[in-house]
Amino acid sequence: MRNRLYFDSLDKNIQAQAFTAIEKEQKTIGYYGLPEQDIAPIVDYCKSIPETVETIAVIGIGGSSLGAKAIYEFIKPVKSLKRKLYFFESTDPINITTILSKLDIQKTHFLVISKSGNTVETFSIYKYIYSLQSNASAYTFITDPDSPLEKYAHEINASVLHLPDNVGGRFSVLSTVGLVPLALCGIDIQDLLNGAKTIKESFFNDGYLKDTLLKKAVYYAKNHAQYNINCLFAYSETLTYFCEWYVQLWGESLGKFQRHSAFNVGLTPIGLIGPKDQHSFLQLIMEGTRDKSVTFIKIEDFHDNITIPDITLPHLESLDILNNLPFSKLINMQCDSVIEALDKQGDIPVDTIIIPTVTECNIGALIFYYELLTSLVGELIDVNTYDQPGVEAGKIILKKKLEV
Amino acid sequence: MRNRLYFDSLDKNIQAQAFTAIEKEQKTIGYYGLPEQDIAPIVDYCKSIPETVETIAVIGIGGSSLGAKAIYEFIKPVKSLKRKLYFFESTDPINITTILSKLDIQKTHFLVISKSGNTVETFSIYKYIYSLQSNASAYTFITDPDSPLEKYAHEINASVLHLPDNVGGRFSVLSTVGLVPLALCGIDIQDLLNGAKTIKESFFNDGYLKDTLLKKAVYYAKNHAQYNINCLFAYSETLTYFCEWYVQLWGESLGKFQRHSAFNVGLTPIGLIGPKDQHSFLQLIMEGTRDKSVTFIKIEDFHDNITIPDITLPHLESLDILNNLPFSKLINMQCDSVIEALDKQGDIPVDTIIIPTVTECNIGALIFYYELLTSLVGELIDVNTYDQPGVEAGKIILKKKLEV
Repeated sequence: MRNRLYFDSLDKNIQAQAFTAIEKEQKTIGYYGLPEQDIAPIVDYCKSIPETVETIAVIGIGGSSLGAKAIYEFIKPVKSLKRKLYFFESTDPINITTILSKLDIQKTHFLVISKSGNTVETFSIYKYIYSLQSNASAYTFITDPDSPLEKYAHEINASVLHLPDNVGGRFSVLSTVGLVPLALCGIDIQDLLNGAKTIKESFFNDGYLKDTLLKKAVYYAKNHAQYNINCLFAYSETLTYFCEWYVQLWGESLGKFQRHSAFNVGLTPIGLIGPKDQHSFLQLIMEGTRDKSVTFIKIEDFHDNITIPDITLPHLESLDILNNLPFSKLINMQCDSVIEALDKQGDIPVDTIIIPTVTECNIGALIFYYELLTSLVGELIDVNTYDQPGVEAGKIILKKKLEV
Repeated sequence: MRNRLYFDSLDKNIQAQAFTAIEKEQKTIGYYGLPEQDIAPIVDYCKSIPETVETIAVIGIGGSSLGAKAIYEFIKPVKSLKRKLYFFESTDPINITTILSKLDIQKTHFLVISKSGNTVETFSIYKYIYSLQSNASAYTFITDPDSPLEKYAHEINASVLHLPDNVGGRFSVLSTVGLVPLALCGIDIQDLLNGAKTIKESFFNDGYLKDTLLKKAVYYAKNHAQYNINCLFAYSETLTYFCEWYVQLWGESLGKFQRHSAFNVGLTPIGLIGPKDQHSFLQLIMEGTRDKSVTFIKIEDFHDNITIPDITLPHLESLDILNNLPFSKLINMQCDSVIEALDKQGDIPVDTIIIPTVTECNIGALIFYYELLTSLVGELIDVNTYDQPGVEAGKIILKKKLEV
């Protein structure tokens, strides 16, 4: 993975302070340790799921689903996988019925993922599905040790796996939360962790990414009042759900009351897919208010050899310049053209991330890169990156309404 | 459709001026007239497509695909449709190969949609597909009268349909661009237009929506420097692609140089789906910078009778408050709880749109409502709502790269 900034940030002291803070933080915040975990227990667990199971269904929402979905949807188009993966993550009845119509419930293993064991969406859906499939062996529960949910699982003799200590939902994709569903589908989870490890080592051991990550974080934090919107413009449809994962990670981590002030702060994430969104959102970036930074993600090699054929269409001869061009080259030329057009504006902060190809290792790297960047920016804008107190108010109101 | 504002706007004069400007504009801008069009030619055209065609594939991007996709994905889960609809809208080779693997090319009719006839994405994909299927009867071209693309279509003896005059891509969903693919799939396009017509008449003939739309547009325009982000928070997965259509409509129409100043202005659209994004983006709205307005869309009746069963889970008895609740009631209670929590903040502009149920008529109404709102806000912030000059720079750079 390569990351090139088209802007600079010269605040060496702030960069050094941020690095020191993160070095300290990594001793207590759980996600930093995930790349080095031993996956043997997960591999063993996977062997306990019968070969007759054709489908894995995650019942979970937010941090319990977005990460695994991002990786599954990235890898699925290029790898023949062992099982299909579905996600129940909405109380929309049409959505529940539609997903159920796609799977054979007798050949499905359900992973019920909830840290607390009282997520409204997860348990309303679980109750409904349990009324259709009451065989406890069809379920595995992923939750905190000794939670009421673990006690329930033991009561019905279902499998239980634990969440690691001190890993919040949106930072949990490289823990059991993401690794279990992905491993069950045949995703290479060791490769995923290896990718994350390369980024971690590069950052903490003075590698090539340390300087870039620090510069980018300091630039984003320092200019957050002007550039309060951070667009991720990924040039591949395979990264659609990665963008959704990024939106949660960035928005929920950085939109907060500051720790040492009375102010609301926040950086607003936007996920875009190229070239499609050149025909949707690009106009706003080019000519709209100067409140957006843009990070482009390019895939260097799509390992797909389809090429625009050498056909001349009468009256449309000007399109012959496309002939004999591989699509993978075209999409990257489109990306380069937009980067050049934005960079020329002079007041839009642009950077590019290039990943070599569509593999588990590369998405693992991208994930850890964004987790580190989020931690750095959170530290710099003085928020608690790892909590989400703002979502409680709605939950309390809902509980009151339900109790009436 | 009902629309309730939780904020007020008392600028009666500005509202009256905006209404006068739109009344004048509707005589020249094409989209305003679409609800009254005669659909007989489209119905006749559809009869020319053989019953053996099982799949319709649109080759088009941006305004040529987003509208039809929004309506198709809204209706599909609740209606048994005649044909499947796919969209080729990316030069990502993995995406092209994946879609092709899902359809039988011999039983597919391709709609190639391009106003200009020189869209790079559309014609690189068309050339590739034409190399696999060179039978001209498998294609219909939708383009401007007398365009080079029409001449090409005549040359190969393929069908041609015309785009109406003076209707830009992002306002074209209720023209041939959206109606043809939808009608071929069995969507009731007359009902769609009827829905749009109710909104149009309500606005122009002093109906209940006139006052609300004007107040909302004036509030958004007047406060655009503070509230520069407009979130659409739709409580149903069926509205996922409607949100994408909204993002193009709003972003590409309103992100511009002002007509009579030197300034870049813009309003940034964000599409959210509830309750999923309560676990992703809500924290940022609740505690982040006060730069976001939020419009909630609720579906009153999902016509789906699934209910949370009356099951008590040992150790999880607190979840019994969910028992016997229909999911359609739960999802709307979740929405109401978030509305209440946001409204309590006092400095987040909130409004709600309630549509009765999932039908063509209701999505037609929602579309026309948003088109009118976009036109009003564009007029008020002094931009040309209907052009997109900012996307040209990247196209010119790409052309140079291709010619090397």
